[in-house]
Amino acid sequence: MRSLYFITGNKGKFSEAKKKFSELNIDIVQKDFGYPEIQADSLKDVALYGVEYIQERFDKPFFLEDAGLFIDALNGFPGVYSAYIFYKISCSGILKLMDELGSNRRKACFRSVIAYKEPDREPDLFIGESYGVISKKPIGENGFGYDPIFIPEKGTKTFAQMETNEKNQFSHRGKSLNKLIDFFKNREIENFKNL
Amino acid sequence: MRSLYFITGNKGKFSEAKKKFSELNIDIVQKDFGYPEIQADSLKDVALYGVEYIQERFDKPFFLEDAGLFIDALNGFPGVYSAYIFYKISCSGILKLMDELGSNRRKACFRSVIAYKEPDREPDLFIGESYGVISKKPIGENGFGYDPIFIPEKGTKTFAQMETNEKNQFSHRGKSLNKLIDFFKNREIENFKNL
Repeated sequence: MRSLYFITGNKGKFSEAKKKFSELNIDIVQKDFGYPEIQADSLKDVALYGVEYIQERFDKPFFLEDAGLFIDALNGFPGVYSAYIFYKISCSGILKLMDELGSNRRKACFRSVIAYKEPDREPDLFIGESYGVISKKPIGENGFGYDPIFIPEKGTKTFAQMETNEKNQFSHRGKSLNKLIDFFKNREIENFKNL
Repeated sequence: MRSLYFITGNKGKFSEAKKKFSELNIDIVQKDFGYPEIQADSLKDVALYGVEYIQERFDKPFFLEDAGLFIDALNGFPGVYSAYIFYKISCSGILKLMDELGSNRRKACFRSVIAYKEPDREPDLFIGESYGVISKKPIGENGFGYDPIFIPEKGTKTFAQMETNEKNQFSHRGKSLNKLIDFFKNREIENFKNL
């Protein structure tokens, strides 16, 4: 079984990926590289800059993931800086910024970008999106980050009201991971194994 | 007259620095290098990462500057990402986040960090700070960014109500530039000229 490195310091993200990859006979290995995340206006740019930094220092196949919550009425805020902004103003700050906005102005999108890189191949990008709305108040105890205020499309509960399996059906990261897995399924896996 | 490069895409910052340096017989030259700004929790880290990136590609004496507004009651928000957050939610977003905070909870600090680098010398850092409070509403037409909502200590007007000369007495960037100028005054200028 070959190893594929997931460059992340986040144990939760790693467990999710490891579970999803178990069907593929590829062993996902966590590696916390501490790569720099640039200040950019898109997740893609952040991910590709990370790939560029890591590929100069690491010669095995790897992927990394960057995610954010993009709220339409706030011009895409908190967006690329979702983690930093959550740490500063949390869900209550987001709700305060939106307190006068009716239900037709609360659209948002959770977005996840995975960048995969192996030697002698351009990076491949896999994007997962989950559309939904921002709730009027935080509800639920599960999940993390903005989960208590995000209700996915066709749903009535926030991510924080769902069990992991249910959330994964709607989740941006679940979708980008599925695309990465399909990519490996559709390639000749043997090619990868011989790297 | 020797040249000192100011790595910035911001013409306003460049003009301010050029004017201040005229007394020193050093010619400030603008260079827009497009260096990556990392996602970090301090201006120093952003500046030092920029220096590291540039020094590998440019062998002349240079400096760069990074600035932010740090609001106490918002855990230092918008902080290192002030420019991005201004672009997304502007002054009105900041005021909304603070609308229930009385005058004793509106303290803030504008901070500027200049990093100077010349070949064969560790980077020097110069920090300028301007303490003050966030106003209850935006006032004034001058300046840019958060100027209409920032009232410096011992002042009664926002930065946006001041002419440039008056603002420069309180300004974070004015102070960090003054420190950089003192640094050159206190060194043997001839050493620098012979680089």
